[in-house]
Amino acid sequence: MSESFDAVDIIRTKRDKGELSPEEIAWVVDAYTREVVADEQMSALAMAILLNGMTRREISDWTAAMIASGERMDFSSLSRPTADKHSTGGVGDKITLPLAPLVAACGVAVPQLSGRGLGHTGGTLDKLEAIPGWRADLTNEEMLAQLDDVGAVICAAGSGLAPADKRLYALRDVTGTVEAIPLIASSIMSKKIAEGTGALVLDVKVGSGAFMKTLDDARELAETMVALGKDAGVHTVALLTDMSTPLGLTAGNGLEVRESVEVLAGGGPQDVVDLTLALAREMVEGAGVTDVDPADALADGRAMDVWRRMISAQGGDPDAPLPTARETHVVTAESDGVLTRLDALAVGIAAWRLGAGRARKEDPVQAAAGVEMHAKPGDEVRAGQPLLTLHTDTPERFDRAVSALEGAVSIGAADEVAGPSDIVIDRIS
Amino acid sequence: MSESFDAVDIIRTKRDKGELSPEEIAWVVDAYTREVVADEQMSALAMAILLNGMTRREISDWTAAMIASGERMDFSSLSRPTADKHSTGGVGDKITLPLAPLVAACGVAVPQLSGRGLGHTGGTLDKLEAIPGWRADLTNEEMLAQLDDVGAVICAAGSGLAPADKRLYALRDVTGTVEAIPLIASSIMSKKIAEGTGALVLDVKVGSGAFMKTLDDARELAETMVALGKDAGVHTVALLTDMSTPLGLTAGNGLEVRESVEVLAGGGPQDVVDLTLALAREMVEGAGVTDVDPADALADGRAMDVWRRMISAQGGDPDAPLPTARETHVVTAESDGVLTRLDALAVGIAAWRLGAGRARKEDPVQAAAGVEMHAKPGDEVRAGQPLLTLHTDTPERFDRAVSALEGAVSIGAADEVAGPSDIVIDRIS
Repeated sequence: MSESFDAVDIIRTKRDKGELSPEEIAWVVDAYTREVVADEQMSALAMAILLNGMTRREISDWTAAMIASGERMDFSSLSRPTADKHSTGGVGDKITLPLAPLVAACGVAVPQLSGRGLGHTGGTLDKLEAIPGWRADLTNEEMLAQLDDVGAVICAAGSGLAPADKRLYALRDVTGTVEAIPLIASSIMSKKIAEGTGALVLDVKVGSGAFMKTLDDARELAETMVALGKDAGVHTVALLTDMSTPLGLTAGNGLEVRESVEVLAGGGPQDVVDLTLALAREMVEGAGVTDVDPADALADGRAMDVWRRMISAQGGDPDAPLPTARETHVVTAESDGVLTRLDALAVGIAAWRLGAGRARKEDPVQAAAGVEMHAKPGDEVRAGQPLLTLHTDTPERFDRAVSALEGAVSIGAADEVAGPSDIVIDRIS
Repeated sequence: MSESFDAVDIIRTKRDKGELSPEEIAWVVDAYTREVVADEQMSALAMAILLNGMTRREISDWTAAMIASGERMDFSSLSRPTADKHSTGGVGDKITLPLAPLVAACGVAVPQLSGRGLGHTGGTLDKLEAIPGWRADLTNEEMLAQLDDVGAVICAAGSGLAPADKRLYALRDVTGTVEAIPLIASSIMSKKIAEGTGALVLDVKVGSGAFMKTLDDARELAETMVALGKDAGVHTVALLTDMSTPLGLTAGNGLEVRESVEVLAGGGPQDVVDLTLALAREMVEGAGVTDVDPADALADGRAMDVWRRMISAQGGDPDAPLPTARETHVVTAESDGVLTRLDALAVGIAAWRLGAGRARKEDPVQAAAGVEMHAKPGDEVRAGQPLLTLHTDTPERFDRAVSALEGAVSIGAADEVAGPSDIVIDRIS
């Protein structure tokens, strides 16, 4: 980095609604990574970005600077095309689990770098760690070998990809600057582009349980990310999907593994099946494979075969029983009628409080804790029937979980059902 | 502080244009002083305050919280009323030097806590330190004794007053958040209120050499500070004064002491005399003294008597010759005509580069460096006559000082003179 700038000048430019040059952006991200720009300067800049925005050009340069802060992976030695998925996070979002083996079964390699959960949304690695023996940490060589052999890998992102993002995300978390769309988009896309996938599908969730509460915000984020992907030569499509109610009938690590296996076995809740297939079709098509229908690969058991091989390759036993919680508590319906609303955020917070999630990065999670749902919006229910079963190893948590669910359930008439009828609200490409 | 809040919630509230409660403000300032709230959190909050503003109520609470972070002084044991002045800073602004002894000569005690300069505006303590033997650091007891005996003291502010301000100011300086009017106003007023003065006059400068470049910004700052003073029971008046051209004919530490002594001796440039008298009248009147005209105390030598006693009391020799620079360089007029403009910022930067100011807190300053002016806007000049004399002990500085002055001087017709005709533009009370 030959040029040098002044951090205060850069902050002032964005503060005063100016546009940062490519050189300024490259310098400030690099200097922050090298700790030449201090945390208190970057947080002031992040707040100015949040409040004054960035142009598409600035966001693209910012993303490039984040990528340049670390290493890039290269899957060009694989015999198959690659595709990856990113979800902005939701309650009961176990889609990666059936999706990765399903897409691999269609002939597309899936290098799925995932994370752990924080707050009310679960993390994919936390879920898979409910499987006895399964391990998340692979070397780059192990990952490539598994992609070549099995076709799908779900593992922890190494610290080498976009290290600037890691530092910046931790800073944004404590400075009220998480919600800046330019920073969210560049954070997600820098890691996915550095990872080297050929095609990418983005699952941008909208609704109470999602990070984006409104369709407008979700659309802006999706459009920004799709543009960033295209700028970087990655075939990128985004689906806007509903997160007003949890996905499927489970929220919790082991509970979601069980439901994912049901989907791979040809069953499972319709919304999980629908979303898995919609995302799989985008990935397969994005990777240039046109002669395979993911629905067939799901129906004929090929996806399940890949799942079993993928879990085994990472030390897991696909036949081992999943852990069960020591205690359960049932919440029943208060009246007869149609379940018109089951709020995603409330269920997510309840599952978190039961032990499925963590408040701080270093907290442990319970493999068996979570919420099992016995009805979805639109289903008829009768007073006294079980609506939810809460699972935990630590029953002193039930009270706070139940209080999180207050007001989360509505029972009424069939025409009062809230939320969109289809899980996929829109597609942006 | 019994209540506890979350820093991120407070940042988010201001980010989203909300109003912070008195309890939230008291907590965040106190927690920042105790280092519970981190620098990166306070800088994000400062940026949100800069961009989204604060209500008068919030600014008042913020000021009270800054005062509560440290000690308060008490001058109630003095037999005389007290009055103080604060200037927002300008080029050639030596007014405190003649003003403090003049007001004391009128029977009002002046406890003037001052600072050192940073950047293109000089600091009052730097100027007085050009006097051989003079010292800025007094204990509170020495300060009170001198106020009782001499009636005027100009000394360094102790670290006990508004320590939150000290930490916050250093943070704002490196995070592009200096220019937030709520934070400027509360920074100034917290120290003045904690100092315990009975009356206060604010010299809010406007123009190229001032912090506030526009009359609107200067007025907003002045109105905010006057309201804060009144809320705290301090008789407060603000004068908006011109800083488009330097005050007087000198900018530089020893040079300004010499000019100040000329004013106390009954001479000196008219603008310095006018502003000194205007501020003195406000201070004397604000302190409730109505039977003395500062112009008399200046004319009959009483102000000069107090000056000599004040300098002696702090170890200085009022009769010692002031240091002179080793080298001088003369800038001449390029044409005949009327000097229509002599830019304050350019002269301030030239004086700074000659060695009168510092770039970092720990830098030394030269006592004799600076710019001497031989004409003011409105004066007739002839081609080749000396306009400015640059003084420094280190002649390698001349080049950069001269380049700072490029475009700073305009010579034209009498009706083209820039800037207001009176030094005092407006009065806010």
